[in-house]
Amino acid sequence: MAHIIILGAGTGGMPAAYELRNLLDKSHTITVINAVDYFQFVPSNPWVAVGWREREAITFPIRPYLEKKNIDFIAQPVARINAEQSSVDLADGRQIFYDYLVITTGPKLAFDEVPGAGPSGFTHSICSIDHAETAYTAYQELIKDPGPVIIGAMPFASCFGPAYEFSFIVNTDLRRRKIRNKVPMTYITSEPYIGHMGLGGVGDSRSMLESELRNNDIKWITNAKVTRVEKDKMFVTELDDNGNVKKEHELPFKYSMMLPAFKGVDPVAAVDGLCNPRGFVIVDDQQRSKKYKNIYSAGVCIAIPPIEVTPVPTGAPKTGYMIETMVTALVHNIASDLKGEVATAKGSWNAICLADLGDTGVAFVALPQIPPRNVNWFKKGKWVHTAKVAFEKYFMYKMKNGTSEPIYEKYVLKMLGIERLDR
Amino acid sequence: MAHIIILGAGTGGMPAAYELRNLLDKSHTITVINAVDYFQFVPSNPWVAVGWREREAITFPIRPYLEKKNIDFIAQPVARINAEQSSVDLADGRQIFYDYLVITTGPKLAFDEVPGAGPSGFTHSICSIDHAETAYTAYQELIKDPGPVIIGAMPFASCFGPAYEFSFIVNTDLRRRKIRNKVPMTYITSEPYIGHMGLGGVGDSRSMLESELRNNDIKWITNAKVTRVEKDKMFVTELDDNGNVKKEHELPFKYSMMLPAFKGVDPVAAVDGLCNPRGFVIVDDQQRSKKYKNIYSAGVCIAIPPIEVTPVPTGAPKTGYMIETMVTALVHNIASDLKGEVATAKGSWNAICLADLGDTGVAFVALPQIPPRNVNWFKKGKWVHTAKVAFEKYFMYKMKNGTSEPIYEKYVLKMLGIERLDR
Amino acid sequence: MAHIIILGAGTGGMPAAYELRNLLDKSHTITVINAVDYFQFVPSNPWVAVGWREREAITFPIRPYLEKKNIDFIAQPVARINAEQSSVDLADGRQIFYDYLVITTGPKLAFDEVPGAGPSGFTHSICSIDHAETAYTAYQELIKDPGPVIIGAMPFASCFGPAYEFSFIVNTDLRRRKIRNKVPMTYITSEPYIGHMGLGGVGDSRSMLESELRNNDIKWITNAKVTRVEKDKMFVTELDDNGNVKKEHELPFKYSMMLPAFKGVDPVAAVDGLCNPRGFVIVDDQQRSKKYKNIYSAGVCIAIPPIEVTPVPTGAPKTGYMIETMVTALVHNIASDLKGEVATAKGSWNAICLADLGDTGVAFVALPQIPPRNVNWFKKGKWVHTAKVAFEKYFMYKMKNGTSEPIYEKYVLKMLGIERLDR
Ligand SMILES: Cc1cc2nc3c(=O)[nH]c(=O)nc-3n(C[C@H](O)[C@H](O)[C@H](O)COP(=O)(O)OP(=O)(O)OC[C@H]3O[C@@H](n4cnc5c(N)ncnc54)[C@H](O)[C@@H]3O)c2cc1C
Ligand SMILES: Cc1cc2nc3c(=O)[nH]c(=O)nc-3n(C[C@H](O)[C@H](O)[C@H](O)COP(=O)(O)OP(=O)(O)OC[C@H]3O[C@@H](n4cnc5c(N)ncnc54)[C@H](O)[C@@H]3O)c2cc1C
Ligand SMILES: Cc1cc2nc3c(=O)[nH]c(=O)nc-3n(C[C@H](O)[C@H](O)[C@H](O)COP(=O)(O)OP(=O)(O)OC[C@H]3O[C@@H](n4cnc5c(N)ncnc54)[C@H](O)[C@@H]3O)c2cc1C
Repeated sequence: MAHIIILGAGTGGMPAAYELRNLLDKSHTITVINAVDYFQFVPSNPWVAVGWREREAITFPIRPYLEKKNIDFIAQPVARINAEQSSVDLADGRQIFYDYLVITTGPKLAFDEVPGAGPSGFTHSICSIDHAETAYTAYQELIKDPGPVIIGAMPFASCFGPAYEFSFIVNTDLRRRKIRNKVPMTYITSEPYIGHMGLGGVGDSRSMLESELRNNDIKWITNAKVTRVEKDKMFVTELDDNGNVKKEHELPFKYSMMLPAFKGVDPVAAVDGLCNPRGFVIVDDQQRSKKYKNIYSAGVCIAIPPIEVTPVPTGAPKTGYMIETMVTALVHNIASDLKGEVATAKGSWNAICLADLGDTGVAFVALPQIPPRNVNWFKKGKWVHTAKVAFEKYFMYKMKNGTSEPIYEKYVLKMLGIERLDR
Repeated sequence: MAHIIILGAGTGGMPAAYELRNLLDKSHTITVINAVDYFQFVPSNPWVAVGWREREAITFPIRPYLEKKNIDFIAQPVARINAEQSSVDLADGRQIFYDYLVITTGPKLAFDEVPGAGPSGFTHSICSIDHAETAYTAYQELIKDPGPVIIGAMPFASCFGPAYEFSFIVNTDLRRRKIRNKVPMTYITSEPYIGHMGLGGVGDSRSMLESELRNNDIKWITNAKVTRVEKDKMFVTELDDNGNVKKEHELPFKYSMMLPAFKGVDPVAAVDGLCNPRGFVIVDDQQRSKKYKNIYSAGVCIAIPPIEVTPVPTGAPKTGYMIETMVTALVHNIASDLKGEVATAKGSWNAICLADLGDTGVAFVALPQIPPRNVNWFKKGKWVHTAKVAFEKYFMYKMKNGTSEPIYEKYVLKMLGIERLDR
Repeated sequence: MAHIIILGAGTGGMPAAYELRNLLDKSHTITVINAVDYFQFVPSNPWVAVGWREREAITFPIRPYLEKKNIDFIAQPVARINAEQSSVDLADGRQIFYDYLVITTGPKLAFDEVPGAGPSGFTHSICSIDHAETAYTAYQELIKDPGPVIIGAMPFASCFGPAYEFSFIVNTDLRRRKIRNKVPMTYITSEPYIGHMGLGGVGDSRSMLESELRNNDIKWITNAKVTRVEKDKMFVTELDDNGNVKKEHELPFKYSMMLPAFKGVDPVAAVDGLCNPRGFVIVDDQQRSKKYKNIYSAGVCIAIPPIEVTPVPTGAPKTGYMIETMVTALVHNIASDLKGEVATAKGSWNAICLADLGDTGVAFVALPQIPPRNVNWFKKGKWVHTAKVAFEKYFMYKMKNGTSEPIYEKYVLKMLGIERLDR
């Protein structure tokens, strides 16, 4: 019978494991391999970085939950993928063979593309729980000795939502501590305009977020290419809409969080013919590698074209729900393969996103995520903040209980006209 | 007794005939001459072009309704106007003399000003029922094989409302068919900014329409000079606020509707000294030709100055209600002439406009239409869509029953402080 | 015992006198010196200039009210301040010695910085009751023979609120007279964008005021440097965001009100080492002159840095409540000095501002006024117009009854988290 390896136990990998187990009969074995032995709910990392969440609340040990569902688990980084021989080499030297490989390895954080950027440099990151905890330590220093804060996203970034979220979360926290007046805040982004989010905007995200930033006394620079970061100064070249240099900025800061550009993780990027130049897996509509018929992939690690060319290069984001539509598609396609049927499932790439702005929030529904869209709204409201907190609990519960899309979720969303698979 | 010819039985011509008949005693004869034998409710043509209306619903044969009111009717194009001899030559060779000539011939659609534009070229028009039906045929092809859509207005255009309306109507139709995600839409306009509408904006039409376009995933380019159109590509030079070239665009499209610039119809433009260089009739405050004392004119065919010089030339629109204020003025002035009294009536040039955005709509009241204004509001609401449908029925009813401004309409509007004549 | 001179009986000077009297024991004498013998409520001057207020309603004779509280009063301009000898020379030659001098002399209106500006030139002012009455006379001419109106603020201006207020007040007045359609209105300002107000904006004042100006058919030019004014023409150089010349304008006008740049009044500016180059008193956190330990200062006449460098130079405004926080601080510090204690009181520089827009209004709360801020909202509403009328009455009542911050005001504001002194 077939052995399926799921490489990466994140937002895409865990649901993939459970859905696959649910769909395939017992004869097939599934092994999840993850660099670390715990799952983390990535969207809550911004809260960790201001001390609104502890590590325990948003992580849990993967093994017991997977094994309860008869899914094997190895907590080891994969060092090499031998696509020709259908096997992977683990860091500890072991070699594991597979009939199918599902790559859900998420992003490699390309801090090195901007000299001085990243936790090893002078800007913090909230992309992982470790980084978020380091960021929180630096944040506590800021509170003791307040100074200018710069939050935003680097050139080639594709994930902008969390940069907006973190700006407003920090703003809310500083206000509660009555020291917001000591912290000039600036949002610096490679987006061509506020609210672009790598998606050409969703609904009128532009006016809404511009207004929200002004209302919270946060300045901004768009079309911003961060060229270099020093201990307390960020060098930014601001372009105009035609891509010509508009202004050079040297911005002092005491604390900075900049979302980096993403690339494919090394072992994946190294597989000959699997990826595009930035190491993202090239897949067809069925989430299958164009070169290796027994490799599927979903999540941040796959290649999707940017919505439009922007003066400073930006990429398109992969939001949670969109990833889950990819996962549901690839799981159905593997099952069809195994039954010798033609694999036809195609992810709807719909996107529902809840972004927390501290004490209020914004929700957007983009069907599909990539424009032009059938549905395209963007709403602000306090209910979104509460909904996001609830969603965190709900998603963690799902990942522990092994149900990727419980029935009631399926029907609620279906009622809203939001489905995972194109019909 | 006097013979009055009304040349053109459109939005201005028909009410002019009925009001004149109503005001003058039986001894005077009125003859309406129109190129075709039917009346069409022009504002509903955008609905025809997406199949929301049929020809029967928005046209009716003119003769029976006019003759019921003792008004003669000739369904023949006028080929020449011999202003010196006060006569017109019809296409079929007949010559008709007049004591007074009322010119309400509307626009000549100057597609030729942009190579490749217009129904004979590669862009469609919704300015007449014939054009709208041709456009609907092409629209049905689009539905079968979706692709990019460009809607907007050419340089020198003066009528922008319907371009916005048609963009939102097409957007709504495509969404109902669930194929909006296959049709990137772009609004291309000679206006200096969104919401200008040839009027320097009405209220805050700018933010409202920008937000509406974003919410409906419609990109736009303003200060756009369309230079050439090929089968599936539109060549656009985008200017900046100072009129310098900002960017050259080559935009692919599968379907396009572009409102053309307007000019005076040939026979009117040909009359020596009657018109300005674009063939629009030059009138004084009493809607009387400055050169020929027995020629009056109202509607799209008269010359009004643009509100302001814009980087890409634009004109000022003549909305329906504004045309009716001109008509009421010229009718009273002819009546005064005939009684040997001084003609003093002056149209208030107030404008009430209902624009349909598919499932919602915008209404604006601009008193007077040309700024600066005493009243200047612009509202969005679903009620506008319903009001526009009701207005279509109401206006058609009025045109069949020969009442240009029924009493109750007069008083309702008067209560709102909107009157046809300046006091 | 000590003799304290309060130089200038305006929005800052009068409360200072009452608070000082209230805090110090009888043994100390207080003398208020003011150029004229009456107090004027400056914020109501815009209403005077359109005839909505008479002089009597917003002025009162100072002497009786001060003397009732055992405070001496001299209605004489101070010609010289001999800071070294702690004395002032009055215009009538008298010399008065002081132990402490409180300078609250407000602005010198630097009309001369723009050739042809100011009441002696071709633009009117609403900065004082005399100017406002002259402006009203000219406004009545405008009503008889309407023409273009330009309202705004000159380069180096720091007080922008009243320019917006006056634009909307004139707009409302002209509408009530039904002649708004004869008066094209343009707002010309040195601000880099609408709603900047010398404060980098408050909340989303930008979109709100842009929308309000559009809704009221008022055009605008920002980054505008007025270079020269002739009888009926204003010469304006419009800069772009980088400070380069974008466009030269020659704007015709029939009536214009332009807020001038402010400087320190001559006798204050003349004191060696007391002021900055524009004659504003340089003070420390305790509102005390950095050079002369027995000189304190508050209000428009002190030096505060501009929030940010703007393409056309602008200054930061000193709003009424912010001035009162300065006054309360300096009064407590003088009292501490007199008791030999260390003076520590520091004004919170919070700002609450009510701006009247004719029939609606905007209120903003900026804690502190200079960004970044803990509180930063900006609301529009009809209640603001009523609140401003009420505030006028309330402030006049306070100035006549000698209570600078009555108990209930203190607690109401404290509840809102708005306090005069930093804790
Ligand atoms: C800070 C942040 C906040 C976000 N918030 C939201 C949100 O609110 N809503 C939303 O819709 N989207 C959000 N996203 C976007 C997206 O949903 C997340 O990035 C999501 O976690 C991506 O899922 P993934 O499975 O592709 O990658 P991840 O969830 O990152 O999972 C990748 C996994 O692969 C493992 N791995 C990688 N390389 C190897 C290797 N060589 N060997 C073994 N294991 C390996 C990693 O350890 C990791 O567990 C956010 C993204 C970020 C960075
Ligand atoms: C697509 C579209 C939608 C619009 N929607 C609105 C709206 O919603 N609200 C609004 O206020 N305004 C609207 N307008 C603007 C304006 O109200 C219309 O253009 C209106 O029809 C103009 O009236 P008119 O009498 O000037 O010309 P028309 O209504 O065009 O009438 C002109 C008549 O003259 C006849 N004619 C021309 N030449 C000759 C000749 N040589 N011999 C004989 N007859 C001749 C024509 O056949 C026609 O019947 C719209 C305009 C367009 C193009
Ligand atoms: C038109 C206008 C409207 C405003 N509206 C508002 C508002 O709505 N809300 C708000 O918060 N702020 C407003 N402000 C800003 C600010 O509150 C006012 O400018 C306020 O009056 C400043 O107070 P002040 O005590 O510094 O100066 P002032 O109130 O101008 O008082 C200065 C006093 O000093 C006297 N003086 C000057 N030189 C001498 C001298 N040599 N000898 C003797 N006496 C002298 C003057 O006669 C005057 O009485 C407005 C300002 C202006 C110009």
